[in-house]
Amino acid sequence: MIDRLCIVGVGLMGGSLAKDLRRLGLCGEVVGCSRKREHLVRARELGIIDAYHLDPAKAVEGADLVVLAVPLGAMAAVLAAMRPGLSSDAVLTDVGSAKCSVIEAARSAFGAVPENFVPAHPIAGTEHSGVEAALQGLFQGCRVILTPTAQTRPEAVNRVRDMWQAVGAEVLEMDPAHHDQVLAATSHLPHMLAYTLVDMLGQMEERVEMFRYAAGGFRDFTRIASSDPQMWHDICIANRDALVDALEQFQANLGVAVAAIRDGDGETVKEIFTRAKALRDRYAGESEVG
Amino acid sequence: MIDRLCIVGVGLMGGSLAKDLRRLGLCGEVVGCSRKREHLVRARELGIIDAYHLDPAKAVEGADLVVLAVPLGAMAAVLAAMRPGLSSDAVLTDVGSAKCSVIEAARSAFGAVPENFVPAHPIAGTEHSGVEAALQGLFQGCRVILTPTAQTRPEAVNRVRDMWQAVGAEVLEMDPAHHDQVLAATSHLPHMLAYTLVDMLGQMEERVEMFRYAAGGFRDFTRIASSDPQMWHDICIANRDALVDALEQFQANLGVAVAAIRDGDGETVKEIFTRAKALRDRYAGESEVG
Repeated sequence: MIDRLCIVGVGLMGGSLAKDLRRLGLCGEVVGCSRKREHLVRARELGIIDAYHLDPAKAVEGADLVVLAVPLGAMAAVLAAMRPGLSSDAVLTDVGSAKCSVIEAARSAFGAVPENFVPAHPIAGTEHSGVEAALQGLFQGCRVILTPTAQTRPEAVNRVRDMWQAVGAEVLEMDPAHHDQVLAATSHLPHMLAYTLVDMLGQMEERVEMFRYAAGGFRDFTRIASSDPQMWHDICIANRDALVDALEQFQANLGVAVAAIRDGDGETVKEIFTRAKALRDRYAGESEVG
Repeated sequence: MIDRLCIVGVGLMGGSLAKDLRRLGLCGEVVGCSRKREHLVRARELGIIDAYHLDPAKAVEGADLVVLAVPLGAMAAVLAAMRPGLSSDAVLTDVGSAKCSVIEAARSAFGAVPENFVPAHPIAGTEHSGVEAALQGLFQGCRVILTPTAQTRPEAVNRVRDMWQAVGAEVLEMDPAHHDQVLAATSHLPHMLAYTLVDMLGQMEERVEMFRYAAGGFRDFTRIASSDPQMWHDICIANRDALVDALEQFQANLGVAVAAIRDGDGETVKEIFTRAKALRDRYAGESEVG
């Protein structure tokens, strides 16, 4: 049970979490914080928060659980701004898609990584964003990865795990750097590819035609290119080391495939396609949960 | 009205077309042809064809409309094999995803591109294949691109256009080379990227984990990697010149994006993402028809 929950960044993720925790009767007062007053007014109209402050230090005052759900690019500044108001007993967690950068931001804001800080990444969301997009049950059946550091108190980890399990998520733990590698390959890299492809088609003379004759597969393939550019900019920059590794690996694999097509080396092409289909068919069912 | 329709290659495309033409009462007898007798037996059980022959020359005998729906890699051999049986009045069309290679195959099988040959590409299909996957209404609302050559008789084009319109498709005409460029960029290139990405993840030590933590966006992005590897091998090899051009353009664009991430050049990253999102949001609605 959370007495006073503070959601810093009341968008799709923060808003959906507060909605579910309230609905389930798992929190008392919910205080919101955002850079923009109109977002907070709207969140209160929607019944997602009870009260709000524009100043992070004021918003976190008296909260026993603080969820940081701001874009990755704002984490460092918001952590520094909330520090004066944060109780040393309060458990702090976040929802960022890259973990090492958030841990680094916390270290620099607090001098050391706070022992009540539990870095977390709920693998959920849609291509929409903002508090209007907040959904009841968004986290039902999704996976949440916690990446505690050596300093993190086990009691703090338990509290955050309980919160996510209460809204229906499957909770796992992972080393922060390992998390960043896995997500770079399975999420950040695909976004880079989809954005780059659509942007490339847009540069072509026949761009209207390009989209006009695109088949259903193209729409699925490029759906993630409709995601929020600012948010994905923040993620890709925040996780740039792991992402560059994944991108370079992809460039090498693509180079092999391009050479095979250029040389008419059908055997290599067929091997790549066959291995990929077998893998996707094998794991697609398993990942339908996520 | 088609008196005797011959479908050479009774799979998803050929089977679905025959199903609709019969249902609409637009054809008399339907004769099937395939390399494998069991496919033909099954197609007859399913009521998709009336009769069959394993020999293409026998199958096309007496047909006034012949639809060639074999994989691109088999086009040249099948065209050569059917030639002795094909009436000079019969209209011949195909459903291949790359057009220049089919036109070349027809030229080499017949000595010149037959004037009753109408190269065509219905932009339809699912990631499934085979006659069991044949669907009523598969072509409803889809686009079919005809790529007649300078030799093609207008009457033959009209007949093929009427057939596709009858099953609910929107029919367009395009230059064959231009078709191949557009499809390389919007279809063949995305398939290469999806197959390459999944294959790359499969080579990683943590491959099970990779798929386990993949989010919903990943499943959409990689859905096309579940497509038939043999069919896509044929398409990519058949359209290799246009595909290599598109791949090289993509490699150049990706190189710019990777350099921007590596250098922490957030402005460039945000520009690419922002342009891509605007384009996809603008055209996604329009292409929902396809």
